[in-house]
Amino acid sequence: MPKEEINNLALRRALFYPAAEIYSNAPGGFWEFADAGEKIRRKIVDLWRKELVEKEGFIEISGAQILPEDVFKASGHIASFSDPVVQCKKCSSLHRADSLLSEKTKEVVPESLATTELDRMIKAHGIECPKCKGKDFAEVKKFNMMMKVDIGATGNQVSYLRPETCQSIFLDFKRIYRTMANSLPLGIAQAGSSFRNEIAPRNTLLRQREFGQMEIEIFFNPHRINEIENFSEIENFKLNLFLLKEKGVKKISCKEAAEKKIVSGKLVAYFLARAQQFYSKLNIPDEKMRFRQLAKDERAFYASETWDFEVETDLGWIELMACNYRTDHDLKGHGKQSKQDMVVTDNNEKVLPHVFELSAGIDRAFYVALDLAFKKEKRGPEERIFLNLPARISPYLAGIFPLVKKDGLLEKAMEIFRQLNSFDFDVLFEEKASIGKRYAKIDEIGVPFAITIDYDSLKDNSVTLRERNSMQQKRVKIDSLPEILWHLKTGKKSFEQA
Amino acid sequence: MPKEEINNLALRRALFYPAAEIYSNAPGGFWEFADAGEKIRRKIVDLWRKELVEKEGFIEISGAQILPEDVFKASGHIASFSDPVVQCKKCSSLHRADSLLSEKTKEVVPESLATTELDRMIKAHGIECPKCKGKDFAEVKKFNMMMKVDIGATGNQVSYLRPETCQSIFLDFKRIYRTMANSLPLGIAQAGSSFRNEIAPRNTLLRQREFGQMEIEIFFNPHRINEIENFSEIENFKLNLFLLKEKGVKKISCKEAAEKKIVSGKLVAYFLARAQQFYSKLNIPDEKMRFRQLAKDERAFYASETWDFEVETDLGWIELMACNYRTDHDLKGHGKQSKQDMVVTDNNEKVLPHVFELSAGIDRAFYVALDLAFKKEKRGPEERIFLNLPARISPYLAGIFPLVKKDGLLEKAMEIFRQLNSFDFDVLFEEKASIGKRYAKIDEIGVPFAITIDYDSLKDNSVTLRERNSMQQKRVKIDSLPEILWHLKTGKKSFEQA
Repeated sequence: MPKEEINNLALRRALFYPAAEIYSNAPGGFWEFADAGEKIRRKIVDLWRKELVEKEGFIEISGAQILPEDVFKASGHIASFSDPVVQCKKCSSLHRADSLLSEKTKEVVPESLATTELDRMIKAHGIECPKCKGKDFAEVKKFNMMMKVDIGATGNQVSYLRPETCQSIFLDFKRIYRTMANSLPLGIAQAGSSFRNEIAPRNTLLRQREFGQMEIEIFFNPHRINEIENFSEIENFKLNLFLLKEKGVKKISCKEAAEKKIVSGKLVAYFLARAQQFYSKLNIPDEKMRFRQLAKDERAFYASETWDFEVETDLGWIELMACNYRTDHDLKGHGKQSKQDMVVTDNNEKVLPHVFELSAGIDRAFYVALDLAFKKEKRGPEERIFLNLPARISPYLAGIFPLVKKDGLLEKAMEIFRQLNSFDFDVLFEEKASIGKRYAKIDEIGVPFAITIDYDSLKDNSVTLRERNSMQQKRVKIDSLPEILWHLKTGKKSFEQA
Repeated sequence: MPKEEINNLALRRALFYPAAEIYSNAPGGFWEFADAGEKIRRKIVDLWRKELVEKEGFIEISGAQILPEDVFKASGHIASFSDPVVQCKKCSSLHRADSLLSEKTKEVVPESLATTELDRMIKAHGIECPKCKGKDFAEVKKFNMMMKVDIGATGNQVSYLRPETCQSIFLDFKRIYRTMANSLPLGIAQAGSSFRNEIAPRNTLLRQREFGQMEIEIFFNPHRINEIENFSEIENFKLNLFLLKEKGVKKISCKEAAEKKIVSGKLVAYFLARAQQFYSKLNIPDEKMRFRQLAKDERAFYASETWDFEVETDLGWIELMACNYRTDHDLKGHGKQSKQDMVVTDNNEKVLPHVFELSAGIDRAFYVALDLAFKKEKRGPEERIFLNLPARISPYLAGIFPLVKKDGLLEKAMEIFRQLNSFDFDVLFEEKASIGKRYAKIDEIGVPFAITIDYDSLKDNSVTLRERNSMQQKRVKIDSLPEILWHLKTGKKSFEQA
């Protein structure tokens, strides 16, 4: 779906919009989410928590967003977390060298290339400054993307906003292992914001300076990468793998992927499967999803194996999750820098755990969910827009609408709203505007059901239940609403069965 | 309950612990929350959302944590958000002047006092440096507590980490009013982190450098402060008011408080009542809560009226929520600085809305909830610790325990875990350690129920349901578990009735 349609809908319903937008000089790359936008985004995190964290018996943390400099010395971010930047000598504007090159050559230009190689390519391809068309550039420089914050009254405790949520997980590993696990594998998860001083934030939510991540780090014994509980549950599940030397996606079972060493081991195959299953629940069609294998020079500096989970949209293939085999890179780094012993005992063996990571973007999943859910349909002379969001991530489960505000209908509707609210359902009460406009509003923000209270409701204690996609309506008893909604919410029954 | 007990429990169960604790030089004032700690903290926010945001039909946002300098010029934080700092001339250590004085005099020393007055008081009271006992101090200086972040490749877009979550709400007001409300009063809420470069972070979660806030800004027409829907619902509700010139708390009805102008109007009384009701749901006893009226020199620079909601603990009275009448301070400031018109039409009247704010601390509510829930009881020769947390904020609703791991009990228990998980219950599966140790663990983290699967379960399809506080047990059918748990969770039935 064209991005203009999403952006229009986003602004019209305040799903998302630029931060500090009333200030014309506010820096780009910061966004706000309101009401339905905030709720959909939050529910994607809830679904992730349920499907990928709680079902696996993993432990979730919520850590500080500011961490001391030593952490990023140890992690390698001080040395290696940088973009290649080039300045136009004529107009002084700054650009990412790799972006300029890939726009010109239409090929992936790894950001990890040496600056001298980038200098050479800029000359060879006759790159022009996008601003002034000049062709004279200064030498490419590495620009560290972390945001610095000085802590303490004298500002002497140099710290950084975290560029990824996972670093707290590595820092907390020992305490959590000791107090809660005492065995491997151990999964620790965190959802929250990360911060990168992008030179060119763009595509609204797809490249921001502050963005949401939901990351899971699975600590395991590298000698036991093929010993994973529940592997039998997914061994025949087909992964959509886009291998390095192939031209398209191959559907390969987890068993085959592990046995043929297409992935490093059963543990990796298992979690790729679980990730693919999770994204299916966001209604991403199977033919639009793939795990792309990354070549060495495309991978992050800490990864020995990377599978990028990507989804096809109007904007091309968008990466939603990087699945990285980080080896013992982080625990080793922190162990050395902090002089702490990170070795644990697993199965009577002293081992420095390895880490397999599922690093997902919250805002990207949110954006893609909107993109795929957006539907426009002709209804006679009129057009209807609705978001076909699954109930699990819809902002509200149902709208509660009194047909009119008088004759006791408002009070009756409020009574129903409060009862459903007390049963923990997300319900939206709306009494303003015509009933048609109220339906149109909840269609546009993806609410799957509407409950309308009319004059008959006062007589027969029943209401009209409307389903968003089909616009079908049925009459149901008010007393049965909690149970019906519970079944609809948890998917135990369909609208037809309700 | 002594704070050592909480801190021990917190470290033992990883409820909370210092950020980057493996680095001995990590700055103080940053904390991590894991597993049960993370969940209890998140559920307090969920309860706030349900009780104070959704029930009122308010709109929630999630905004950028970094905002440009102009925002804080407009809000007054650049000019006024500072602490008085004094340096010992002998040992060079820095201290908060107001804290040194209030520790010595045992009286509240407003941080807003002029620096010259603080200089005079330091001499008059013969204040000693807490570090070196020196008595020679440099002049008191104002130290701005905001954390600066430079954005952009040349770092020229000076920005700050927000010192309060509400500023995004003021920035977003116009878009939300236009797209979603078009009438006053309008409530907008946000929960998230705020950042203050405290000189002396202390008392674990009570004074941090990064801390959680849940704030609600209610925009209203100042001429209609006494027109509030649903006032009749709380008019006889008694507020615990600790008035400026009184020695103790008076229980005053909302009606009386509004009519006698003890508060600025019915709107203020209504939301004080709703706040007090919310904190009751965290099990805070009525006799331990009060709204303390703040004198002019104690109030924040933007407030014309402030009621601090405080709770009595072992550490004294702790402020959980500041209820501030911010007038049109913020909208006026942003309108002027951004050159945008913030006036809206309410009831055919052009008006610059006033704001009444409920500004609550997440971590403080979490800490106080633990403090009040902590119970230690003698059971024969042994001692039992449990957290008497209400089900709404307990980390899990129930633990699912197979009595042993063999003979099919593990599988049966896993089946029950998955079924309850699919019904959206927060359940904890635990198969390790003795059943006694597993009960002890969930008691300590405040899980209200345990479901134990034993050999009889395989025969009669029933399990043992145990209640935390009474340790009573009853036998229930596996099939009826979803309904029983639903009633227990939403408070529709008690354990006895279940």
